[in-house]
Amino acid sequence: MYFRALVFLEKNQKDYISSSELAEFVHIKPPQIRKDFSYFGAFGTKGIGYDIKNLINEIQSILKLDSPQKAALIGAGKLGTALCLFPGFKAYGFEISAIFDKDPDKIGKKIGNTTIEDVATVDSLTQRNIKLAILAVPANTAQSTTAELVQAGITGILNLSPCYLDVPPDVKVVTIDIAMELGALPYYI
Amino acid sequence: MYFRALVFLEKNQKDYISSSELAEFVHIKPPQIRKDFSYFGAFGTKGIGYDIKNLINEIQSILKLDSPQKAALIGAGKLGTALCLFPGFKAYGFEISAIFDKDPDKIGKKIGNTTIEDVATVDSLTQRNIKLAILAVPANTAQSTTAELVQAGITGILNLSPCYLDVPPDVKVVTIDIAMELGALPYYI
Repeated sequence: MYFRALVFLEKNQKDYISSSELAEFVHIKPPQIRKDFSYFGAFGTKGIGYDIKNLINEIQSILKLDSPQKAALIGAGKLGTALCLFPGFKAYGFEISAIFDKDPDKIGKKIGNTTIEDVATVDSLTQRNIKLAILAVPANTAQSTTAELVQAGITGILNLSPCYLDVPPDVKVVTIDIAMELGALPYYI
Repeated sequence: MYFRALVFLEKNQKDYISSSELAEFVHIKPPQIRKDFSYFGAFGTKGIGYDIKNLINEIQSILKLDSPQKAALIGAGKLGTALCLFPGFKAYGFEISAIFDKDPDKIGKKIGNTTIEDVATVDSLTQRNIKLAILAVPANTAQSTTAELVQAGITGILNLSPCYLDVPPDVKVVTIDIAMELGALPYYI
């Protein structure tokens, strides 16, 4: 969240920010921000604040976002295709360098510059040094596909299927459930 | 989160669940779960646990998900189209009953059964009693579109544009930043 806010502020030509200004962006209280930043030795200058570019570099390095990361997309349906063409991944250094699907009509076709491969050959990821996967398959095949991905050496999964994934403890899953997020809104309207 | 987990468990033919079983699903400690549920008078039965159907009904009613909710989609690009056809919204009672875009080539065409309207006529939402919007437009038009939505009486926005939205205090925004979520993974892999 800090990273995203700081990148946004940098784009808007800001060089320095105080913890109270940043607090407004991230909805975290200024003392917490100062505490968090002090963990990696970032201390603001009185009356000037924090050097934004410096903070971005620090956080980028902590999050291992300072070198390009290859990711595989599993599922070339409407959502997968939209994600594949989504320009926002570049800001974080991500490149979708492999796409898999099980539909024979899709295999061999391209999204952008990347050819869709048969999901049955997903084990080729082991040789290609791809550790990240974006899972955009229907809920009913998500778990079996995940098992194959883990087998192929994937250790980080961004799960867009509305379901729970059972993975070994050394595999990290982040789930985005768009319907659930929308489900939080009626309470407020 | 509780709602999603309980719906999942109900689909898997479970009638009762203990707070420790539920804890495994939602990654929240059992005492916290018992405390949360006690707020709305849900108390498990010793040796049996909580009645799942009953909990679902309670939470659905608290979150105002117990009656159908109409939502408008703004932006009929690849992501918007994928969302529009996404079956997962139905579980929460959502129906996308209006779609807007600014592209003359898209206006008048249909996604599913819904005709794409000109985003210049977004003020018609006032008369149609639609309070929820899903925003899937590029970041550079997100803020101006949001201002028009607020003007048209929208009070809940699911924002899929990778940017911050400035809204009045009575408007609730939930932002899903898919790239940021993926950005959390390299640290672990």
